[in-house]
Amino acid sequence: MLPVFGHLNPDTDAITSALVYARLLTRQGTEARAYRLGELNFETPYVLREAGLDAPELLPELAAGSRVALVDHNESAQSVPNLADLTVTHVVDHHKLGDLSTAAPAYLRFEPVGCTGTILLKLHREANVSVEPVDAKLMLSAILSDTLHFRSPTTTQADRDAVDFLAPIAGVGDVETYALAMFAAKSDLGDTPAETLLKMDYKVFPFGDVAAPQRWGLGVVETTNPAYVFGRQAELLAAMASAKTQDGLDGILLSVVDILNETNRTLVPGEVEAAVVQAVFGADTTGNVADLGARISRKKQIVPALETHFAL
Amino acid sequence: MLPVFGHLNPDTDAITSALVYARLLTRQGTEARAYRLGELNFETPYVLREAGLDAPELLPELAAGSRVALVDHNESAQSVPNLADLTVTHVVDHHKLGDLSTAAPAYLRFEPVGCTGTILLKLHREANVSVEPVDAKLMLSAILSDTLHFRSPTTTQADRDAVDFLAPIAGVGDVETYALAMFAAKSDLGDTPAETLLKMDYKVFPFGDVAAPQRWGLGVVETTNPAYVFGRQAELLAAMASAKTQDGLDGILLSVVDILNETNRTLVPGEVEAAVVQAVFGADTTGNVADLGARISRKKQIVPALETHFAL
Repeated sequence: MLPVFGHLNPDTDAITSALVYARLLTRQGTEARAYRLGELNFETPYVLREAGLDAPELLPELAAGSRVALVDHNESAQSVPNLADLTVTHVVDHHKLGDLSTAAPAYLRFEPVGCTGTILLKLHREANVSVEPVDAKLMLSAILSDTLHFRSPTTTQADRDAVDFLAPIAGVGDVETYALAMFAAKSDLGDTPAETLLKMDYKVFPFGDVAAPQRWGLGVVETTNPAYVFGRQAELLAAMASAKTQDGLDGILLSVVDILNETNRTLVPGEVEAAVVQAVFGADTTGNVADLGARISRKKQIVPALETHFAL
Repeated sequence: MLPVFGHLNPDTDAITSALVYARLLTRQGTEARAYRLGELNFETPYVLREAGLDAPELLPELAAGSRVALVDHNESAQSVPNLADLTVTHVVDHHKLGDLSTAAPAYLRFEPVGCTGTILLKLHREANVSVEPVDAKLMLSAILSDTLHFRSPTTTQADRDAVDFLAPIAGVGDVETYALAMFAAKSDLGDTPAETLLKMDYKVFPFGDVAAPQRWGLGVVETTNPAYVFGRQAELLAAMASAKTQDGLDGILLSVVDILNETNRTLVPGEVEAAVVQAVFGADTTGNVADLGARISRKKQIVPALETHFAL
């Protein structure tokens, strides 16, 4: 039984891609099962309910040497802590290739598209495997989630084509309405603790010198209701300060992305971060907030700019 | 114009995969051109003559930031010296994933099959691109070469299926006869200098501690005429000793693989190497030769065993 899982702080793509890829592998003769590496965000339960599925279980501790399949991530900092002791046999991902290596030849499929779901649809079609309605719903949801319904600059024609192909199979007549319902579910943050809000879509990236990298924590809250998030600014800044200390980070940022207006206002806790935000994005920090304009993609517009900055 | 190239000390798969993938990318809208990273072995000119093609040109020096596509390799030690300064946008490979990373999401296609040519055939079929006879001849030749016509333990069913599919398109009626002609061409080593013989199919592998690895040079001569090679044993041992010094290696081995009898007798220049060969393969070294039995695949039977040894 091959465990399949997405990244820590799972988003909709990390969860649904594990479910879809596990089923595809199983149908193709490799018994596989989906797991998750953490608590769901507020969007994914909506998607799973719509698909009539339960959430995958938390990944149990795996013995050294166990075979695993990764989806929607490949860097060790975003994966299970003992990844280096495991045998990665499959990866399907749409992120840059980080520090992954394999002990033996493996099956790796990376494409520069907006969502892992888009690649998974290709895998079905290339193998002439029928797309089940439940899988269509999961892949469709992941693409709408990752691309913010095509608003993100990570969107490619392949993502749009995939949605056109999947919507009728998934029984989604009005994609716009479905996407808005997903985003509303994601924005219904209620009394979520600030620590949880910060870490819901959060990744630690090493920048600069490979031997002694700077480590930055980069969180994103994608919401249709940014006013709610900024209403909790003091709490969030306190949570960021303690995460920075606890995780031994060099810097930490939390980007609040207004999905519908496609803007990014980022929480900047201190002077170190403010100086980097000024140098990299030319943005002033006022009252711990920097306006990063239309930079709504961490992957395409935030991480590469920081990477270039710290490489100098 | 995207340069496409295989590994240093190119073999038939490295050369033909660059040619085939460059043409496929071009047909799919990405203008690409095949290059090579070194002199051809004795088998590849036979294959190119049969296919009616000239050898690709040597890769010119590329400016930092240039986009490149890699085939049949991914580790920096086996690639162009300034790989770290280049932007890798595509990789098609069947080796383990080494130290490659990318600055941005890229197109990566790795499968644990016997030959890059087998993956390239899949890419054609998945994209519904017709397979031209010349490309069929190149992919067929690469698969026969890399798998020693299915003798190597790296051979998979996908490689066999690919040959069945390609042979009629390539106009090769008798695959066995064609493979033997390729192997005969490869074995016709004439008055090749010992240095050239050593380095013809030669790769440097880092083993053990990532920060301070042991570096071993592992050469292979696949031949239908091992007696010829052992007739030049003294010359070859001298060439190995100087390569070890010049390249600052911790160890060096040259495996003489008898293609038709599927055996490996390896040249062992010194005590350091003899101790490792004894510890890893349980093989004694007598007169600078160790009998490694049926271990005819460097990739599957030599490198992983050394890797495990030095990781301890």
